[in-house]
Amino acid sequence: MRNLKCTVSYDGSNYHGFQRQANALAVQEVIERAIESLVKKEIKIIGASRTDSGVHAKGQVFNFKVESSIPTVKFPIALNTRLPDDVVILDACEVADDFHARYHTSDKIYEYQIYNAEFPSPFYRNYAYHIYNQLDLDLMKEGAEYLVGEHDFSSFRSSGCNAKNPIRRIFNIDIDREDNLIKLSIHGNGFLYNMVRIIVGTLVKVALGRIKPEAVQEILLAKDRSKAGPTAPAQGLILKKINY
Amino acid sequence: MRNLKCTVSYDGSNYHGFQRQANALAVQEVIERAIESLVKKEIKIIGASRTDSGVHAKGQVFNFKVESSIPTVKFPIALNTRLPDDVVILDACEVADDFHARYHTSDKIYEYQIYNAEFPSPFYRNYAYHIYNQLDLDLMKEGAEYLVGEHDFSSFRSSGCNAKNPIRRIFNIDIDREDNLIKLSIHGNGFLYNMVRIIVGTLVKVALGRIKPEAVQEILLAKDRSKAGPTAPAQGLILKKINY
Repeated sequence: MRNLKCTVSYDGSNYHGFQRQANALAVQEVIERAIESLVKKEIKIIGASRTDSGVHAKGQVFNFKVESSIPTVKFPIALNTRLPDDVVILDACEVADDFHARYHTSDKIYEYQIYNAEFPSPFYRNYAYHIYNQLDLDLMKEGAEYLVGEHDFSSFRSSGCNAKNPIRRIFNIDIDREDNLIKLSIHGNGFLYNMVRIIVGTLVKVALGRIKPEAVQEILLAKDRSKAGPTAPAQGLILKKINY
Repeated sequence: MRNLKCTVSYDGSNYHGFQRQANALAVQEVIERAIESLVKKEIKIIGASRTDSGVHAKGQVFNFKVESSIPTVKFPIALNTRLPDDVVILDACEVADDFHARYHTSDKIYEYQIYNAEFPSPFYRNYAYHIYNQLDLDLMKEGAEYLVGEHDFSSFRSSGCNAKNPIRRIFNIDIDREDNLIKLSIHGNGFLYNMVRIIVGTLVKVALGRIKPEAVQEILLAKDRSKAGPTAPAQGLILKKINY
């Protein structure tokens, strides 16, 4: 029995998130079906992160235990031929028997894309948050600095969050613009439910001049979700990388 | 009666090209429907370029004559609310009565995207040509140089091409890689049918080492479609800009 760790990239537009559900198609289900069709056994995979409906991944990780004569290195290509073209396995490797994709993460990088232009782009309609008004990235960067470090992120989690400990560490937030596309890259040791999207929704208010950059610190200290900005839309979010 | 010139961006994935057809949905039809719903008159637009099925545009141009009390500057937003989100009007301006979007072009820029990696990307499945083998961009650039200038491009047009004169001038071909994405940008005074896609198909053969860069000149001089490489797939092609 091998324990296999896989990296998967997916366009989340057509899925109800990663985690398998009874009444809607999730990425987990299409992956499990592909593995089952390959190894002819029922398989349950453990995903590192439960991405929401419409959220994308370039580096989601999952593991599963399998008895099979297929060499580990052959799994990606064998699975990709059985997967729809919006889900692509990038890598497979054998890991220790006790490796757990969700419990053993050390840190993660999320990316969030904003398309900042007068009119939306047909090419980013499923991959970015369109904002009409000009965003001031200097203000946005100044606001973001208050979030770096170890903090209680209670103001930046949705009510559905069931994490017991709201303390997380953000290592850095990079913000760059190339033409009309703004990319925020957020690297942290872990994230509460909707934390990245609420951070983005709050930093957008800063970049629009509606709140001052210093307000981000006050929002943090308030430990109150109602003080932060709105949850930015799902389609701009990409799970970029998970480290172990 | 005003003559309006519009710039439109579209994701061609769900359309059978730009030009209106009897039995399949084309971009022209959805634009004409949107204009008709706005001005309550039957309208026929003249597109600058007949992009093929699956080909995209960031700067397609069309013009149409209209009698309407709606100010020109209001047309983009009024049309965008009537268009699906994969077709976006970027600009409208009034032009001289004799302006013709197809006949009066001076030069065009096309972009072609290649995704060069072991596995395809779910995000580029509709926007790039996936090539598994490593491409040598130095060879590709060397081959491309033979195409710059004024030439008879008979070897680089599909049999369906009904242009009388096969002479075209290419001003330059830029080739860049960023991570796994290779972008070719081709600027010319005009293009024969499938010319960009056959150029890309030929330069890919050069970049794979299957033919020498110098062979591109021999292919040009042969004036024979069968000597060039295959027509690269439609989904990698983007009509970037049209100048007048």
